Amino acid sequence: MTDTADYRIEHDTMGEVRVPKDALYRAQTQRAVENFPISGSTLESAHIAALALVKKAAATANQELGVLDAERAGAIRDAADEVAAHRHDAEFPVDVFQTGSGTSSNMNTNEVLATLATRALEGQDVEVHPNDHVNASQSSNDVFPTSVHVAVTGALINDLKPALDTLASSLERKAEEFKDVVKSGRTHLMDATPVTLGQEFSGYAAQVRYGIERIDASLPRVAEVPLGGTAVGTGINTPDGFSARVIELLAEETGLPLTEARNHFEAQANRDGLVEASGQLRNIAYSLMKINNDIRWMGSGPNTGLGELRIPDLQPGSSIMPGKVNPVICEAVIQVAAQVIGNDTTVALSSTNGAFELNVGIPVMAKNLLESIRLLGNASTVMAEKMIDGLEANVERARFLAEASPSTVTPMNKLIGYEAAAKIAKYAVNNKTTVRDAVVELGYVERGEVTEQQLDEALDVTKMLGSF
Amino acid sequence: MTDTADYRIEHDTMGEVRVPKDALYRAQTQRAVENFPISGSTLESAHIAALALVKKAAATANQELGVLDAERAGAIRDAADEVAAHRHDAEFPVDVFQTGSGTSSNMNTNEVLATLATRALEGQDVEVHPNDHVNASQSSNDVFPTSVHVAVTGALINDLKPALDTLASSLERKAEEFKDVVKSGRTHLMDATPVTLGQEFSGYAAQVRYGIERIDASLPRVAEVPLGGTAVGTGINTPDGFSARVIELLAEETGLPLTEARNHFEAQANRDGLVEASGQLRNIAYSLMKINNDIRWMGSGPNTGLGELRIPDLQPGSSIMPGKVNPVICEAVIQVAAQVIGNDTTVALSSTNGAFELNVGIPVMAKNLLESIRLLGNASTVMAEKMIDGLEANVERARFLAEASPSTVTPMNKLIGYEAAAKIAKYAVNNKTTVRDAVVELGYVERGEVTEQQLDEALDVTKMLGSF
Amino acid sequence: MTDTADYRIEHDTMGEVRVPKDALYRAQTQRAVENFPISGSTLESAHIAALALVKKAAATANQELGVLDAERAGAIRDAADEVAAHRHDAEFPVDVFQTGSGTSSNMNTNEVLATLATRALEGQDVEVHPNDHVNASQSSNDVFPTSVHVAVTGALINDLKPALDTLASSLERKAEEFKDVVKSGRTHLMDATPVTLGQEFSGYAAQVRYGIERIDASLPRVAEVPLGGTAVGTGINTPDGFSARVIELLAEETGLPLTEARNHFEAQANRDGLVEASGQLRNIAYSLMKINNDIRWMGSGPNTGLGELRIPDLQPGSSIMPGKVNPVICEAVIQVAAQVIGNDTTVALSSTNGAFELNVGIPVMAKNLLESIRLLGNASTVMAEKMIDGLEANVERARFLAEASPSTVTPMNKLIGYEAAAKIAKYAVNNKTTVRDAVVELGYVERGEVTEQQLDEALDVTKMLGSF
Amino acid sequence: MTDTADYRIEHDTMGEVRVPKDALYRAQTQRAVENFPISGSTLESAHIAALALVKKAAATANQELGVLDAERAGAIRDAADEVAAHRHDAEFPVDVFQTGSGTSSNMNTNEVLATLATRALEGQDVEVHPNDHVNASQSSNDVFPTSVHVAVTGALINDLKPALDTLASSLERKAEEFKDVVKSGRTHLMDATPVTLGQEFSGYAAQVRYGIERIDASLPRVAEVPLGGTAVGTGINTPDGFSARVIELLAEETGLPLTEARNHFEAQANRDGLVEASGQLRNIAYSLMKINNDIRWMGSGPNTGLGELRIPDLQPGSSIMPGKVNPVICEAVIQVAAQVIGNDTTVALSSTNGAFELNVGIPVMAKNLLESIRLLGNASTVMAEKMIDGLEANVERARFLAEASPSTVTPMNKLIGYEAAAKIAKYAVNNKTTVRDAVVELGYVERGEVTEQQLDEALDVTKMLGSF
Repeated sequence: MTDTADYRIEHDTMGEVRVPKDALYRAQTQRAVENFPISGSTLESAHIAALALVKKAAATANQELGVLDAERAGAIRDAADEVAAHRHDAEFPVDVFQTGSGTSSNMNTNEVLATLATRALEGQDVEVHPNDHVNASQSSNDVFPTSVHVAVTGALINDLKPALDTLASSLERKAEEFKDVVKSGRTHLMDATPVTLGQEFSGYAAQVRYGIERIDASLPRVAEVPLGGTAVGTGINTPDGFSARVIELLAEETGLPLTEARNHFEAQANRDGLVEASGQLRNIAYSLMKINNDIRWMGSGPNTGLGELRIPDLQPGSSIMPGKVNPVICEAVIQVAAQVIGNDTTVALSSTNGAFELNVGIPVMAKNLLESIRLLGNASTVMAEKMIDGLEANVERARFLAEASPSTVTPMNKLIGYEAAAKIAKYAVNNKTTVRDAVVELGYVERGEVTEQQLDEALDVTKMLGSF
Repeated sequence: MTDTADYRIEHDTMGEVRVPKDALYRAQTQRAVENFPISGSTLESAHIAALALVKKAAATANQELGVLDAERAGAIRDAADEVAAHRHDAEFPVDVFQTGSGTSSNMNTNEVLATLATRALEGQDVEVHPNDHVNASQSSNDVFPTSVHVAVTGALINDLKPALDTLASSLERKAEEFKDVVKSGRTHLMDATPVTLGQEFSGYAAQVRYGIERIDASLPRVAEVPLGGTAVGTGINTPDGFSARVIELLAEETGLPLTEARNHFEAQANRDGLVEASGQLRNIAYSLMKINNDIRWMGSGPNTGLGELRIPDLQPGSSIMPGKVNPVICEAVIQVAAQVIGNDTTVALSSTNGAFELNVGIPVMAKNLLESIRLLGNASTVMAEKMIDGLEANVERARFLAEASPSTVTPMNKLIGYEAAAKIAKYAVNNKTTVRDAVVELGYVERGEVTEQQLDEALDVTKMLGSF
Repeated sequence: MTDTADYRIEHDTMGEVRVPKDALYRAQTQRAVENFPISGSTLESAHIAALALVKKAAATANQELGVLDAERAGAIRDAADEVAAHRHDAEFPVDVFQTGSGTSSNMNTNEVLATLATRALEGQDVEVHPNDHVNASQSSNDVFPTSVHVAVTGALINDLKPALDTLASSLERKAEEFKDVVKSGRTHLMDATPVTLGQEFSGYAAQVRYGIERIDASLPRVAEVPLGGTAVGTGINTPDGFSARVIELLAEETGLPLTEARNHFEAQANRDGLVEASGQLRNIAYSLMKINNDIRWMGSGPNTGLGELRIPDLQPGSSIMPGKVNPVICEAVIQVAAQVIGNDTTVALSSTNGAFELNVGIPVMAKNLLESIRLLGNASTVMAEKMIDGLEANVERARFLAEASPSTVTPMNKLIGYEAAAKIAKYAVNNKTTVRDAVVELGYVERGEVTEQQLDEALDVTKMLGSF
Repeated sequence: MTDTADYRIEHDTMGEVRVPKDALYRAQTQRAVENFPISGSTLESAHIAALALVKKAAATANQELGVLDAERAGAIRDAADEVAAHRHDAEFPVDVFQTGSGTSSNMNTNEVLATLATRALEGQDVEVHPNDHVNASQSSNDVFPTSVHVAVTGALINDLKPALDTLASSLERKAEEFKDVVKSGRTHLMDATPVTLGQEFSGYAAQVRYGIERIDASLPRVAEVPLGGTAVGTGINTPDGFSARVIELLAEETGLPLTEARNHFEAQANRDGLVEASGQLRNIAYSLMKINNDIRWMGSGPNTGLGELRIPDLQPGSSIMPGKVNPVICEAVIQVAAQVIGNDTTVALSSTNGAFELNVGIPVMAKNLLESIRLLGNASTVMAEKMIDGLEANVERARFLAEASPSTVTPMNKLIGYEAAAKIAKYAVNNKTTVRDAVVELGYVERGEVTEQQLDEALDVTKMLGSF
């Protein structure tokens, strides 16, 4: 099918393989490409960069500890920088559904770096070997999971937290803007005592800020990496001091709060820190569902719904109903939330894919976790910028409904007791009248049980809003 | 702590055990009671009955095939009838979180029946042994999963399907009652073209009836049982013909469409049929969520919500807000749905608890599946009888909102095109006027683009309701 | 940033939009591209094709019923054929995380077809309008979900079922090949009575064939489509007879068993059929997990594991441990299973995203369901061709272990009772001897309780394999 | 049906109700009993106690702030102490599937305390009213969720953390006991370089200790309570200072680190803290699955499995296979894990059951979370005491397998390179010889590439165990 000229022959411990002529990768990558024609999706770009940075740190530590000479170490570092800068993403063609340790992607990295480094040293008669040099003092079993923790920690800190902050800030601005917009509270979807729209938005902002706290709470275990454990946690084939030093270098390079696994056997065998991070993302996803559901309900109408908010018009809403505009950002974000929650199932379930010294579901955990972070980050930004920032309150309608709620009778409990107050509320609803009129009509004023003044004070919705 | 006199000594292949003096069960049950002090919950009552019925059928088949004498077989059958009639549920004290094959509960059944049968034969110097007689030609590995499939099939057919039928019938009666109640359709929660409340309820009824179809679709695999495979699927220690005959007897006794596993190795190793049934229950649970969410939204208010339905008042709704009434049945059913969906996770995940010739997560699958069926059945009945049957439409408000929807402009597409119709809808919303007035104010009639008569016809909401 | 010359101006009911000069799509697509910069993923290719085929059938039905002239209808049909042939996938740039009804993708289809059709009619002074012509008698609310059901039904029937059949056939060939390979059964992971490797593989094959049955069981509801319901289920703006005719045409065109929704209000508001299909995929995923777990355990070793199977060597297994080969296909498939199970969570959870006349989680349901089908299909094929077909049994080791299992004592139950047999088994294990020797050493032969001949017969593992 | 004499008549704002004559509860409890005949399960006992303690703290704060007189406050406190001491659990008959705010259970508590307090004040002509006194300054909407957070925080700190500590300590003792037991590492289930059994158990212990850390990480948000927000978060009907004071009292009484909600609108509307706690339990559950799976695999056999561990014999394992003993505690714990993971789905999904100022899925969240904590606590204790403490290593077999692993060639990488080492490993496996003999037979010693001494050093498994 393809011309022989397009290929070159590479070999590995299992024999010869035909590899695309210009590929930077070699035999093992090619085998993996052929073995896993499954999804068409490869590692996330941030993940490839993290793999390269692990190799860079390892090269330096190996040099310092006498395992690698300065020339090869330097060439590997330079090559790693290129890959980390996303200049060779296309050279990482292995499907994400591959061997569960990520060995194929680790070897892909080793091969690409070996080729780049060997080329850089051309003319010096020095070869850089994928296993003996690039992978020196390492194993897929510590490198690959480390790369996932690095990529996830980086994405949480550098991408998701700022996006959530953007969203929380946008919500806080609205909380301030809406602080005097009185509206009916709703519990069980039924008319309750009044709140302000600003109070509701302060709650949404707080919920998003708790999401940031949740990420922070998980970081101590997400940022802990197994590097140095090599094959099974014992650190076989590493020089003394390698483990601590390589992680120190990696932390410096990335600026991330990376730490060494406190127990290398736990760290090798389990990816519980990733499950924990995923659980927090699930929590954030459910929070975004709640906020967007509230907003689209408050924006429902324009004429047959609650009509308390105006959501920005972004696009025509219907191919058949002219003039219809829908809360499309709410819907997009809720779908993102559903995706993140499903991804979380995949991540957590992959815990069952561990036995003895290795979990073999790491690539799929990485894919789902990094995708979830990316989706939540983008969705939070889009939500803030295209929707929240443009929300407007229907101040009059909100106030009208607040005063129409029969639960405005609640402050009367303290004057006449819960049971009498209940009679008034029911009378008001059944006779389609206001609570105030109901009190009068039922004779409470006449009988002197409450004065007009007490009534005015008790039924003033602006006095039911508390001090929080 | 307890007086020695309260105990008797029993033995099994591992030695002696102290058993409560009056217990019908023996050593192995007692060991299990002591080994698993975990949840305090035992098997569901329907499950115990199913175990007994398996033993009854086995006794008869064993007698017919010459494995058991008539006396013992008869005594076992009589004992099984007592247990199946729920007369000895308290003699089944083993925790549901036990050995994953349910061996402890199978042995519990063997021991109780052996004691009852031996007693019945008292004076005839005949002992009925739990393993050699009650369990003859059987293994926990075929008996216990069979008992689960029998109990689940029975509960689906005899309990859940009738309850769903009750609910669907209640919804169908309301569909008829509400067939002329015009209301605004809502898509994306936004005002759409009109529907009738009856059409909506016909949709809910259909959704429940699809649930019944889904149960039926799964039955061929749920009602297929591994009985006769004994230890590992080979049927070791069974006489020729046992497998077919015992299942035939069991099907007769229970009146259920039970069939023999088409492949005894698949049947021994996996409980996929239970997962399938659980998936259908999950679907039904989500259906009930949708229906109850719609209903509580339509019942929201009384003054600040949609207010299209009146949900029966069942109890005071708030300890602080007097006179408040909430859609409590909707909430109870939605919580049942959430429980069923969680139970389904447990059932499906337990698939990972199978290896080679046995799944060892069967008791927890049984518990969750039988609980889900019971919850859905009770919730459906309560929902029908305490809520749906008592729903009342707010006919006038529903009609008012239907006519207020700007999407009533939709039929104008065919007269003046989608883009012109969109202009009209926007004009109506922005100027808080009706679609009809908007058409006139924008000059369409004056310009002769539509006649008054066309307008009347196009904007009549009762003509937008279709023929379905 | 971009030169003005690269854009043209398009308009829709909300005003003007700059669209890439050569794009076939128009204003609404462009708005959606700008509104949803979220995932970077667009609709699956099979989904785009399904949308086009719906439009084609609608054009014909509209022509037959007098809604469209022959010229426009013909031009729309031709354009739809081009899109269905995947010639314009790049013209569908809208993110999958978009409005929950898929309106943006429906309008994208309308716009692309309108442009192609208008071009084809160039010189005839006939314009084809996206809404008034391509979308005539339709709404996103019936077209988009219909397109999902069509794409899913097609992928299940044409892609997944054949792939599962390939896998089942491969397993069946191995069942035949291994039919005389005796091995130890294992229950609770502990030594049990013997089975053949062929029996185990017959079980795996059966499990996969049940998966096919499960798909078939769901098809009646997956293949039922809401087309004809338009905006809210009433079929507003459709001519009489449209609904039945357009589905008939679509069924003919696709060769799929499509049927019209039995209740258009249920069909408009819920996507329960998709949830049901997804539940069956989940079941298949768990089945594949079980089979692959068994296989990799049987292949474990080469020297410290069970060592009963040789799994084909596909690639070097470790970057540090030389010569290691791992069960990489098993791991890839198990990761696919984890992904499908997570996707299923997303699909099912999206049920909560429905209210009144519309579910607004359809695009994310479609993405996850179609991806799951694609992953399961590819994984099944890869599993069959790269692994199952190449499996080899370690016949001698398997037989050796079969005979080493103390559970081979089981047939003695019938000779000497369960309790005596238990003593023998324990003696054999504790004294590291065979069951046969244990019987002799414990004096059963000497005492005449069993004869040598009975012993030979009872302990022959080839006689413990049953007749199934 | 029942004799009238068995009932008394009570009333509430909706009218009269027949209540069992001797019941401490009143009308609203009785209505709830009749409205929710769904599961037969009531609130967990720890939850009832927490409700009582909230009432006690509220009584004191109300007294201090002048809302209640000393007599009533004292009587309520005394009554609350009785309930908190589990003396009246049977007076809490309301089904857990009830109104989603838990109003029925809050009113049940109000009624029982009102009855007890009124009785205590008999002769003083003072009545204690359920709403006006017991519920003073409170709402179900802040009391009920507060009670859940209190019960959950208490159960996490007082029950689960100690149980996990018991388990971790048991594992740590075994890590010490097994610290010199060399065994083969396994990655991808395939033979890897050696580890010690002690290292593996140190990993298990660490994993359990991380579980404790995860609980601690979630406590700041689990222990934050909405008390003081009353109906909708505004604190309507509370005196100034109530919120801070009542929580201070509650923290003192319970000894728990309870804090006041930082935003009462977030706290009223969402139960995200419970979801977070549940996510951590899920993580612990998956950890226990991994540990128990490893242990039962290491205990597999006795003759056909890995046979590296002896798991204590607790009960006969099979009703048909004599002498069989199974890892029953592993199986029970794995089933507990599956239950906890399913319960977590229910808890998290209940997030979708929140709208505006209230989540209405609280009772089902409470049930599942408290059950999960109880199950995990009991399972951890049982696992430690009945299994881990009794584990014994098969030291010789473990060492034999360690030396049989072809991956013991790994240290040779540094002497002869990865590729040559791979040749040796393959030769050893194919020729069923040791790595040492393979090196010799392939001529490496003869050719002087390695010396015998280097070989001895490199292949000593006790030198491959690292320093961690």
